[in-house]
Amino acid sequence: MIILGIDPGFRYSGYGILKKEPRKSVLLDCGYLSLPATKTLSERLGIFYSFFSAKVVEWNITDIALETPFLGKNAQNFLKLGYLRGNIYLIANQHSLSIHEFAPREVKQAVTGWGGASKEQIARVVLQLFPGLEKPKRDDVTDALAVTVTALWRAKTTM
Amino acid sequence: MIILGIDPGFRYSGYGILKKEPRKSVLLDCGYLSLPATKTLSERLGIFYSFFSAKVVEWNITDIALETPFLGKNAQNFLKLGYLRGNIYLIANQHSLSIHEFAPREVKQAVTGWGGASKEQIARVVLQLFPGLEKPKRDDVTDALAVTVTALWRAKTTM
Repeated sequence: MIILGIDPGFRYSGYGILKKEPRKSVLLDCGYLSLPATKTLSERLGIFYSFFSAKVVEWNITDIALETPFLGKNAQNFLKLGYLRGNIYLIANQHSLSIHEFAPREVKQAVTGWGGASKEQIARVVLQLFPGLEKPKRDDVTDALAVTVTALWRAKTTM
Repeated sequence: MIILGIDPGFRYSGYGILKKEPRKSVLLDCGYLSLPATKTLSERLGIFYSFFSAKVVEWNITDIALETPFLGKNAQNFLKLGYLRGNIYLIANQHSLSIHEFAPREVKQAVTGWGGASKEQIARVVLQLFPGLEKPKRDDVTDALAVTVTALWRAKTTM
Protein backbone atom coordinates (compact mmCIF):
# COMPACT_ATOMS: atom_id res chain seq x y z
CA MET A 1 0.00 0.00 0.00
CA ILE A 2 1.53 3.29 -1.13
CA ILE A 3 -0.69 6.30 -0.44
CA LEU A 4 -0.62 9.69 -2.10
CA GLY A 5 -2.40 12.31 0.02
CA ILE A 6 -3.24 15.60 -1.67
CA ASP A 7 -4.42 18.94 -0.28
CA PRO A 8 -5.40 20.55 -3.60
CA GLY A 9 -5.53 24.27 -4.27
CA PHE A 10 -5.24 26.53 -7.31
CA ARG A 11 -2.33 28.38 -5.73
CA TYR A 12 -0.58 25.62 -3.76
CA SER A 13 -1.27 21.88 -3.60
CA GLY A 14 0.45 20.02 -0.79
CA TYR A 15 1.11 16.30 -1.10
CA GLY A 16 2.64 13.44 0.86
CA ILE A 17 3.50 9.89 -0.16
CA LEU A 18 3.67 7.17 2.48
CA LYS A 19 4.38 3.46 2.22
CA LYS A 20 2.92 0.99 4.67
CA GLU A 21 5.51 -1.46 5.94
CA PRO A 22 4.91 -4.17 8.56
CA ARG A 23 5.94 -2.13 11.59
CA LYS A 24 6.16 1.40 10.33
CA SER A 25 5.13 4.05 7.79
CA VAL A 26 7.87 5.18 5.44
CA LEU A 27 7.81 8.71 4.08
CA LEU A 28 8.76 8.47 0.39
CA ASP A 29 8.10 12.01 -0.80
CA CYS A 30 6.34 15.22 0.15
CA GLY A 31 6.18 18.80 -1.02
CA TYR A 32 3.88 21.12 -2.86
CA LEU A 33 3.00 22.14 -6.37
CA SER A 34 2.70 25.86 -7.03
CA LEU A 35 0.51 26.86 -9.98
CA PRO A 36 1.38 30.19 -11.62
CA ALA A 37 -1.50 32.68 -11.39
CA THR A 38 -0.47 34.04 -14.80
CA LYS A 39 -1.57 30.83 -16.56
CA THR A 40 -5.17 30.17 -17.57
CA LEU A 41 -7.36 27.85 -15.50
CA SER A 42 -7.11 25.27 -18.25
CA GLU A 43 -3.29 25.46 -18.31
CA ARG A 44 -3.07 25.18 -14.54
CA LEU A 45 -5.29 22.09 -14.62
CA GLY A 46 -3.02 20.59 -17.28
CA ILE A 47 0.04 21.16 -15.05
CA PHE A 48 -1.75 19.75 -12.00
CA TYR A 49 -2.87 16.64 -13.88
CA SER A 50 0.59 15.99 -15.36
CA PHE A 51 2.36 16.55 -12.02
CA PHE A 52 0.23 14.11 -10.04
CA SER A 53 -0.03 11.55 -12.88
CA ALA A 54 3.79 11.49 -12.88
CA LYS A 55 3.91 11.04 -9.07
CA VAL A 56 1.51 8.10 -9.33
CA VAL A 57 3.73 6.37 -11.89
CA GLU A 58 7.04 7.28 -10.21
CA TRP A 59 6.03 5.86 -6.80
CA ASN A 60 3.67 3.06 -7.86
CA ILE A 61 0.83 4.65 -5.92
CA THR A 62 -2.02 2.29 -4.93
CA ASP A 63 -4.30 4.67 -2.97
CA ILE A 64 -5.23 8.32 -2.86
CA ALA A 65 -6.28 10.21 0.29
CA LEU A 66 -8.29 13.45 0.30
CA GLU A 67 -10.13 15.67 2.74
CA THR A 68 -13.82 16.24 2.03
CA PRO A 69 -14.26 19.93 1.25
CA PHE A 70 -17.02 22.08 2.65
CA LEU A 71 -18.61 25.09 1.02
CA GLY A 72 -16.99 28.25 2.39
CA LYS A 73 -17.83 31.86 1.70
CA ASN A 74 -16.83 31.75 -1.93
CA ALA A 75 -18.91 29.43 -4.14
CA GLN A 76 -16.65 29.99 -7.16
CA ASN A 77 -13.58 28.85 -5.22
CA PHE A 78 -15.53 25.79 -4.10
CA LEU A 79 -16.42 25.04 -7.72
CA LYS A 80 -12.78 25.45 -8.80
CA LEU A 81 -11.67 23.11 -6.03
CA GLY A 82 -14.05 20.69 -7.73
CA TYR A 83 -12.03 21.08 -10.97
CA LEU A 84 -8.86 19.91 -9.19
CA ARG A 85 -10.67 17.10 -7.39
CA GLY A 86 -12.22 15.98 -10.70
CA ASN A 87 -8.71 15.65 -12.10
CA ILE A 88 -7.61 13.60 -9.08
CA TYR A 89 -10.61 11.28 -9.51
CA LEU A 90 -9.73 10.91 -13.19
CA ILE A 91 -6.12 10.00 -12.34
CA ALA A 92 -7.46 7.45 -9.83
CA ASN A 93 -9.59 5.91 -12.56
CA GLN A 94 -6.80 5.86 -15.14
CA HIS A 95 -4.42 4.08 -12.74
CA SER A 96 -7.02 1.94 -10.87
CA LEU A 97 -6.34 3.58 -7.50
CA SER A 98 -8.63 3.49 -4.46
CA ILE A 99 -9.77 6.84 -3.09
CA HIS A 100 -10.18 7.49 0.63
CA GLU A 101 -11.94 10.61 1.82
CA PHE A 102 -12.03 11.98 5.34
CA ALA A 103 -13.81 14.91 6.90
CA PRO A 104 -11.38 17.56 8.28
CA ARG A 105 -12.43 16.66 11.84
CA GLU A 106 -11.60 13.00 11.26
CA VAL A 107 -8.10 13.88 10.12
CA LYS A 108 -7.50 16.19 13.07
CA GLN A 109 -8.92 13.58 15.46
CA ALA A 110 -6.76 10.78 13.99
CA VAL A 111 -3.53 12.78 14.00
CA THR A 112 -3.74 14.87 17.17
CA GLY A 113 -6.49 13.10 19.13
CA TRP A 114 -8.64 16.22 18.98
CA GLY A 115 -11.09 17.12 16.17
CA GLY A 116 -10.67 20.84 16.75
CA ALA A 117 -6.87 20.96 16.43
CA SER A 118 -5.18 23.93 14.69
CA LYS A 119 -2.94 23.76 11.63
CA GLU A 120 0.07 24.37 13.92
CA GLN A 121 -0.87 21.42 16.15
CA ILE A 122 -1.30 19.21 13.08
CA ALA A 123 2.13 20.31 11.80
CA ARG A 124 3.78 19.60 15.18
CA VAL A 125 2.46 16.03 15.35
CA VAL A 126 3.36 15.32 11.71
CA LEU A 127 6.93 16.52 12.34
CA GLN A 128 7.17 14.25 15.40
CA LEU A 129 5.99 11.28 13.33
CA PHE A 130 8.70 11.78 10.74
CA PRO A 131 11.82 12.92 12.61
CA GLY A 132 13.88 13.17 9.42
CA LEU A 133 11.46 15.71 7.94
CA GLU A 134 12.43 19.37 8.07
CA LYS A 135 9.62 21.80 8.76
CA PRO A 136 8.07 22.41 5.32
CA LYS A 137 7.73 25.97 4.10
CA ARG A 138 3.97 25.61 3.76
CA ASP A 139 1.17 24.21 5.94
CA ASP A 140 -0.22 22.59 2.78
CA VAL A 141 2.50 19.93 3.08
CA THR A 142 1.81 18.98 6.70
CA ASP A 143 -1.94 19.09 5.98
CA ALA A 144 -1.45 16.66 3.09
CA LEU A 145 0.73 14.40 5.25
CA ALA A 146 -1.97 14.43 7.96
CA VAL A 147 -4.61 13.09 5.57
CA THR A 148 -2.12 10.54 4.19
CA VAL A 149 -1.33 9.29 7.70
CA THR A 150 -5.06 9.09 8.49
CA ALA A 151 -5.67 6.88 5.44
CA LEU A 152 -2.72 4.67 6.34
CA TRP A 153 -3.82 4.18 9.95
CA ARG A 154 -7.40 3.50 8.95
CA ALA A 155 -6.20 0.84 6.53
CA LYS A 156 -4.16 -0.77 9.32
CA THR A 157 -7.10 -1.06 11.66
CA THR A 158 -9.45 -2.45 9.03
CA MET A 159 -7.04 -5.11 7.76
CA MET B 1 -13.94 26.93 -36.14
CA ILE B 2 -15.61 23.73 -34.88
CA ILE B 3 -17.31 24.14 -31.52
CA LEU B 4 -18.21 21.46 -29.01
CA GLY B 5 -20.85 22.69 -26.56
CA ILE B 6 -21.41 20.60 -23.45
CA ASP B 7 -24.13 20.67 -20.79
CA PRO B 8 -22.41 18.41 -18.25
CA GLY B 9 -24.20 16.32 -15.61
CA PHE B 10 -23.44 13.16 -13.64
CA ARG B 11 -26.58 11.54 -14.97
CA TYR B 12 -26.83 12.99 -18.51
CA SER B 13 -24.45 15.24 -20.41
CA GLY B 14 -25.87 16.83 -23.55
CA TYR B 15 -23.55 17.96 -26.32
CA GLY B 16 -23.65 19.60 -29.72
CA ILE B 17 -20.96 20.07 -32.38
CA LEU B 18 -21.26 22.93 -34.88
CA LYS B 19 -19.00 24.03 -37.67
CA LYS B 20 -18.83 27.65 -38.75
CA GLU B 21 -19.02 28.03 -42.53
CA PRO B 22 -19.08 31.32 -44.46
CA ARG B 23 -22.86 31.69 -44.62
CA LYS B 24 -24.19 29.09 -42.22
CA SER B 25 -23.64 26.87 -39.19
CA VAL B 26 -23.43 23.16 -39.93
CA LEU B 27 -24.59 20.68 -37.30
CA LEU B 28 -22.03 17.85 -37.28
CA ASP B 29 -23.14 15.85 -34.25
CA CYS B 30 -25.31 16.06 -31.15
CA GLY B 31 -26.63 13.75 -28.47
CA TYR B 32 -26.03 12.90 -24.85
CA LEU B 33 -23.84 10.72 -22.71
CA SER B 34 -25.56 8.76 -19.95
CA LEU B 35 -23.36 7.76 -16.99
CA PRO B 36 -24.50 4.63 -15.12
CA ALA B 37 -25.35 5.39 -11.47
CA THR B 38 -24.00 1.95 -10.53
CA LYS B 39 -20.41 3.01 -11.34
CA THR B 40 -18.21 4.90 -8.88
CA LEU B 41 -17.66 8.62 -9.25
CA SER B 42 -14.12 7.92 -10.42
CA GLU B 43 -15.31 5.44 -13.07
CA ARG B 44 -17.96 7.86 -14.33
CA LEU B 45 -15.34 10.61 -14.66
CA GLY B 46 -13.15 8.19 -16.62
CA ILE B 47 -16.02 7.47 -19.04
CA PHE B 48 -16.86 11.18 -19.36
CA TYR B 49 -13.23 12.10 -20.08
CA SER B 50 -12.78 9.34 -22.67
CA PHE B 51 -16.08 10.11 -24.40
CA PHE B 52 -15.38 13.82 -24.88
CA SER B 53 -11.67 13.35 -25.64
CA ALA B 54 -12.74 11.04 -28.47
CA LYS B 55 -15.29 13.60 -29.76
CA VAL B 56 -12.58 16.28 -29.82
CA VAL B 57 -10.31 14.08 -31.93
CA GLU B 58 -13.07 12.70 -34.18
CA TRP B 59 -14.37 16.15 -35.17
CA ASN B 60 -11.17 18.22 -34.98
CA ILE B 61 -12.75 20.48 -32.36
CA THR B 62 -11.18 23.95 -32.00
CA ASP B 63 -13.40 25.49 -29.31
CA ILE B 64 -15.47 24.44 -26.32
CA ALA B 65 -18.62 26.23 -25.11
CA LEU B 66 -20.03 25.96 -21.58
CA GLU B 67 -22.64 27.62 -19.42
CA THR B 68 -21.40 29.17 -16.17
CA PRO B 69 -22.99 27.24 -13.32
CA PHE B 70 -24.53 28.83 -10.26
CA LEU B 71 -24.71 27.38 -6.79
CA GLY B 72 -28.13 25.78 -6.30
CA LYS B 73 -29.62 24.19 -3.22
CA ASN B 74 -27.18 21.30 -3.13
CA ALA B 75 -23.54 22.25 -2.55
CA GLN B 76 -22.34 18.67 -3.11
CA ASN B 77 -23.95 18.55 -6.56
CA PHE B 78 -22.31 21.88 -7.35
CA LEU B 79 -18.93 20.46 -6.31
CA LYS B 80 -19.47 17.35 -8.45
CA LEU B 81 -20.39 19.51 -11.42
CA GLY B 82 -16.95 21.01 -10.80
CA TYR B 83 -15.42 17.53 -11.25
CA LEU B 84 -16.92 17.27 -14.74
CA ARG B 85 -15.96 20.82 -15.64
CA GLY B 86 -12.41 20.18 -14.42
CA ASN B 87 -12.22 17.27 -16.86
CA ILE B 88 -13.49 19.49 -19.70
CA TYR B 89 -10.85 22.13 -18.89
CA LEU B 90 -8.21 19.42 -18.86
CA ILE B 91 -9.33 18.16 -22.29
CA ALA B 92 -9.19 21.77 -23.54
CA ASN B 93 -5.62 22.06 -22.30
CA GLN B 94 -4.52 18.72 -23.75
CA HIS B 95 -5.88 19.61 -27.21
CA SER B 96 -5.16 23.38 -27.12
CA LEU B 97 -8.84 24.36 -27.40
CA SER B 98 -10.31 27.75 -26.52
CA ILE B 99 -13.04 27.77 -23.89
CA HIS B 100 -16.05 30.10 -24.07
CA GLU B 101 -18.31 30.50 -21.08
CA PHE B 102 -21.70 32.16 -21.00
CA ALA B 103 -24.14 32.90 -18.21
CA PRO B 104 -27.48 31.06 -18.64
CA ARG B 105 -29.23 34.38 -19.31
CA GLU B 106 -26.78 35.22 -22.10
CA VAL B 107 -27.52 31.92 -23.83
CA LYS B 108 -31.29 32.38 -23.53
CA GLN B 109 -30.98 35.97 -24.74
CA ALA B 110 -28.82 35.01 -27.72
CA VAL B 111 -31.02 32.10 -28.82
CA THR B 112 -34.57 33.29 -28.12
CA GLY B 113 -34.07 37.04 -27.70
CA TRP B 114 -35.27 36.84 -24.10
CA GLY B 115 -33.06 36.12 -21.06
CA GLY B 116 -35.91 34.50 -19.14
CA ALA B 117 -36.86 31.90 -21.79
CA SER B 118 -37.92 28.39 -20.70
CA LYS B 119 -36.24 25.13 -21.71
CA GLU B 120 -39.16 24.48 -24.09
CA GLN B 121 -38.70 27.85 -25.80
CA ILE B 122 -34.96 27.17 -26.15
CA ALA B 123 -35.72 23.74 -27.65
CA ARG B 124 -38.24 25.22 -30.12
CA VAL B 125 -35.75 27.79 -31.47
CA VAL B 126 -32.93 25.24 -31.71
CA LEU B 127 -35.18 22.90 -33.71
CA GLN B 128 -36.07 25.78 -36.06
CA LEU B 129 -32.39 26.53 -36.58
CA PHE B 130 -31.60 22.96 -37.63
CA PRO B 131 -34.58 21.73 -39.65
CA GLY B 132 -33.01 18.31 -40.22
CA LEU B 133 -32.78 17.67 -36.48
CA GLU B 134 -35.44 15.46 -34.89
CA LYS B 135 -36.62 16.51 -31.46
CA PRO B 136 -34.03 14.99 -29.08
CA LYS B 137 -35.25 12.76 -26.25
CA ARG B 138 -33.67 15.00 -23.66
CA ASP B 139 -33.57 18.77 -23.03
CA ASP B 140 -29.85 18.37 -22.28
CA VAL B 141 -29.23 18.11 -26.03
CA THR B 142 -31.09 21.29 -27.02
CA ASP B 143 -29.53 23.07 -24.01
CA ALA B 144 -26.06 22.06 -25.22
CA LEU B 145 -26.88 23.15 -28.77
CA ALA B 146 -28.08 26.51 -27.45
CA VAL B 147 -24.74 27.24 -25.79
CA THR B 148 -22.88 26.01 -28.89
CA VAL B 149 -24.91 28.35 -31.12
CA THR B 150 -24.27 31.25 -28.72
CA ALA B 151 -20.50 30.70 -28.91
CA LEU B 152 -20.65 30.49 -32.71
CA TRP B 153 -22.68 33.69 -33.08
CA ARG B 154 -20.48 35.57 -30.65
CA ALA B 155 -17.42 34.53 -32.65
CA LYS B 156 -19.07 35.83 -35.82
CA THR B 157 -19.76 39.24 -34.37
CA THR B 158 -16.26 39.63 -32.92
CA MET B 159 -14.45 38.67 -36.12
